[in-house]
Amino acid sequence: MQEDLKKYIRDVKDFPKEGIVFKDITTLLKEPKAIKATIDQLYEKAKDLKIDKVVAIESRGFMFGVMLAEKLGAGFVPIRKPKKLPADVFRQEYQLEYGSDIIEMHKDAITAGENILLHDDVLATGGTAKAACQLIEQAKGNIVQVSFLIELGFLEGKKMIEKYPIEALMRY
Amino acid sequence: MQEDLKKYIRDVKDFPKEGIVFKDITTLLKEPKAIKATIDQLYEKAKDLKIDKVVAIESRGFMFGVMLAEKLGAGFVPIRKPKKLPADVFRQEYQLEYGSDIIEMHKDAITAGENILLHDDVLATGGTAKAACQLIEQAKGNIVQVSFLIELGFLEGKKMIEKYPIEALMRY
Repeated sequence: MQEDLKKYIRDVKDFPKEGIVFKDITTLLKEPKAIKATIDQLYEKAKDLKIDKVVAIESRGFMFGVMLAEKLGAGFVPIRKPKKLPADVFRQEYQLEYGSDIIEMHKDAITAGENILLHDDVLATGGTAKAACQLIEQAKGNIVQVSFLIELGFLEGKKMIEKYPIEALMRY
Repeated sequence: MQEDLKKYIRDVKDFPKEGIVFKDITTLLKEPKAIKATIDQLYEKAKDLKIDKVVAIESRGFMFGVMLAEKLGAGFVPIRKPKKLPADVFRQEYQLEYGSDIIEMHKDAITAGENILLHDDVLATGGTAKAACQLIEQAKGNIVQVSFLIELGFLEGKKMIEKYPIEALMRY
């Protein structure tokens, strides 16, 4: 039976602002057996997909994204905030509740046609995940899975990326 | 013989500002065999140290820091920029060339007396690494190694953290 990972997640009330209950994964990361159980579960969902690259979103997405890449024998590609990546980038703007934000990915990070797994820690409204998918599409990557540790179902972020296969280890 | 990792590092001129040659590790991360060679070399240097926790600095430090924790069977602790960690934190201010910066670590991330390996991607002036060591000392962690992928020797950052054992896979 799969280990229940929810027991390692800490609820922090009123973070980052009042009324929000933040799902803290640092309490999972500090337990070696929880790291192993999490990466094993992510790997099981992706192992048969012939993944060439795992792409992950700064910065909590990097943590399990890079371990998953290593376990799958795939390459790892970071998507970052503006002006963090040093070489030529694709840029993607996306809307936030108030205003907008931009994420970037190196133009030479993905070769056209490669099988891509996109990973982030939490699926909330789906805005960042959608923008990340658009970056991968700009590079002509073939998105075969979008995986999250946690899906906040009530925010309906799935609708933003419904054309891709979505996996999440924990749902709230 | 150890694989030469330098061939995977990309030099990017004038980033983040004119006159600086930036050592880009994304070209290493996109090659699965380079990821494995790097993590194997980090592991060899740390495997006999009975590491309880790997602490790594946001955000490039997270990448190999978390893989090293997983391989060592240790827990993982992120050090982050202000207001990113949701629970109670230790804070450490440090000087930059112009002005100052702050990093934070959860107060409950480390138990007093645990053996700690601190990891970051690049040792430059050593200011951030020293501040990270101070955070770990605040939590009464026992720093048994500070490891980097890359040491920029001409910046003499080693002097800032010379009381700890330092390892680096590549030197320039």
